Amino acid sequence: MNALRFAAQQLFAALCIALVVIAAAHAAEPLPCWNNGPNKQAIFKFVAEVTDKRSPNYVAPAERVATFDNDGTLWSEQPLYFQFPFMIEQVKAAAPEHPEWKDNPVFKALIAHDDAALAELGHKPLIELLVQANSGMTTEAYDKTIRDWLATTRHPQTKRLYTEMVYKPMQELLSYLRANGFKTFIVSGGSVEFMRPWSEAAYGIPPEQVIGTLSDVKFDMQDGHPVLIRESKIDFVDDGPGKPAGIYRAIGRRPVAAFGNSDGDLEMLQYTMAGSGKRLTVLVHHDDAEREFAYDRESKVGKLDKALDEARTKQWVVISMKNDWKCIYPDQTKK
Amino acid sequence: MNALRFAAQQLFAALCIALVVIAAAHAAEPLPCWNNGPNKQAIFKFVAEVTDKRSPNYVAPAERVATFDNDGTLWSEQPLYFQFPFMIEQVKAAAPEHPEWKDNPVFKALIAHDDAALAELGHKPLIELLVQANSGMTTEAYDKTIRDWLATTRHPQTKRLYTEMVYKPMQELLSYLRANGFKTFIVSGGSVEFMRPWSEAAYGIPPEQVIGTLSDVKFDMQDGHPVLIRESKIDFVDDGPGKPAGIYRAIGRRPVAAFGNSDGDLEMLQYTMAGSGKRLTVLVHHDDAEREFAYDRESKVGKLDKALDEARTKQWVVISMKNDWKCIYPDQTKK
Repeated sequence: MNALRFAAQQLFAALCIALVVIAAAHAAEPLPCWNNGPNKQAIFKFVAEVTDKRSPNYVAPAERVATFDNDGTLWSEQPLYFQFPFMIEQVKAAAPEHPEWKDNPVFKALIAHDDAALAELGHKPLIELLVQANSGMTTEAYDKTIRDWLATTRHPQTKRLYTEMVYKPMQELLSYLRANGFKTFIVSGGSVEFMRPWSEAAYGIPPEQVIGTLSDVKFDMQDGHPVLIRESKIDFVDDGPGKPAGIYRAIGRRPVAAFGNSDGDLEMLQYTMAGSGKRLTVLVHHDDAEREFAYDRESKVGKLDKALDEARTKQWVVISMKNDWKCIYPDQTKK
Repeated sequence: MNALRFAAQQLFAALCIALVVIAAAHAAEPLPCWNNGPNKQAIFKFVAEVTDKRSPNYVAPAERVATFDNDGTLWSEQPLYFQFPFMIEQVKAAAPEHPEWKDNPVFKALIAHDDAALAELGHKPLIELLVQANSGMTTEAYDKTIRDWLATTRHPQTKRLYTEMVYKPMQELLSYLRANGFKTFIVSGGSVEFMRPWSEAAYGIPPEQVIGTLSDVKFDMQDGHPVLIRESKIDFVDDGPGKPAGIYRAIGRRPVAAFGNSDGDLEMLQYTMAGSGKRLTVLVHHDDAEREFAYDRESKVGKLDKALDEARTKQWVVISMKNDWKCIYPDQTKK
């Protein structure tokens, strides 16, 4: 009887120790959805070096700026950048008031459901139609339109809400970088208005750290109430060579780490690497047709061609979604 | 002897208690350079209300955005906005390459030393000449020009470096707000490039929280090295009605507190007050000819007329530099 009790006590103690060890291992593992391998290790090594005061590559906390593309880097972007179905809906609704659009090639592609043509044009031409469609709207009314659309519209294939199609491993990476003193920014070709309503909840990135394509707004007094009115002009295109310019305008510091997935991110990564000291540039490679989408050089959406060549030549980190990530979307970890 | 020792011990204990009380009082006094009075109390009351979870006016930390004009609100601006002598120097140096300027009224005012005319025009026309003068320069070379100028040029009257002419009471206010969970931003009509090199040291405001007038920059490769090149176009004027637009573009949230000193800040203050819940809007009134400068409705630089009327009608806080501030510049507290 005593021997049995002793054995039970021993077992209980051993279980407690095991639990503590597991908990500690878990706490020490900041990227649980990432498979171990050279890419995960490269990220750990970079962070260890720039945060170690004794390292020659030490970077002061104020300078730890990390910039992330959004479409295809933090959330999915197939079969069409997620802002596109929203914009198409808005533009179609406004079409009766814009007979001048009938010869516009972008509008024609939109009406003809020529998604490949739209994708190839990128965000700018559609945003140009959108700002005409929504000209005169207050920024508050526009914000509500976006929130309503995001709360109710589902992805045609996965049937998820678009905001449920963010990448869990990238959420972990953002948290890990912030825990190490980094300030994380989105630098996207999409409109700031389309990302800000959900960037904080999805990524922990507040609206003021979302850099994107800008359209003009004008201050006005309506019945004695100050409002901002959307104008019909696109003001700044934050894509390709626009990304380093957008970073300079909004942040005023060069990133020490930058993350992208397409040729539209190449200049941001080049600009990041051109700084002194240790830098980290990462491409997310979409090679997982089963769990997400597989595409690169031939894709109209998120084309990855030149940037992939440069990444391989310069030994940037190229993430394989298939091999490096244990899961893709947050709801897959709950199952 | 024993009685003497006892008395000495008592005295020592009393001194210790007194020191602790003084230290505690000092720690509890976040705005030491502010005289006590209704304005200081209004600031304390606002902060207490929006940070108290039980208050109906509670504001979540993420929403605690406070925006500050720079010229005349955080540092002096007389006899001419401090960016002006820098720009005048740059424009004069480039004049031989710009014969087309000879009929430009801004250039003529500049050559004629007509400071009143320049001041009345505001930042925009001079920045327009400046961007032509510096077009083709890399952003890094331009940054160095600004740093060198600020490190060596002294104010014509006070003989201080310009960056020594920041307001100590406003430094205290910025720290106090940040200690209470606020994120502090500059929203200025001046160029971002001119403020970012020193905003962190002077105000604790990092470059990415400096919003200002923007000129175009273009990404380019020079001998395989990525650079940003200044273009000859001014892109966004962050003044007057441009301030709420600049806040919307860069922050994407409405401030809960805004601080200015001139009519160029009026729309920012109106926009701030138009939000729901408790808001704080403050004007710094320059009424101290002895320690700084005294000016308002008739001044070409930092004209305060309409905004002063509105502040009085709507009971915004109007700071009297003469009565509310114990000191003006940081070096005055060291004396």
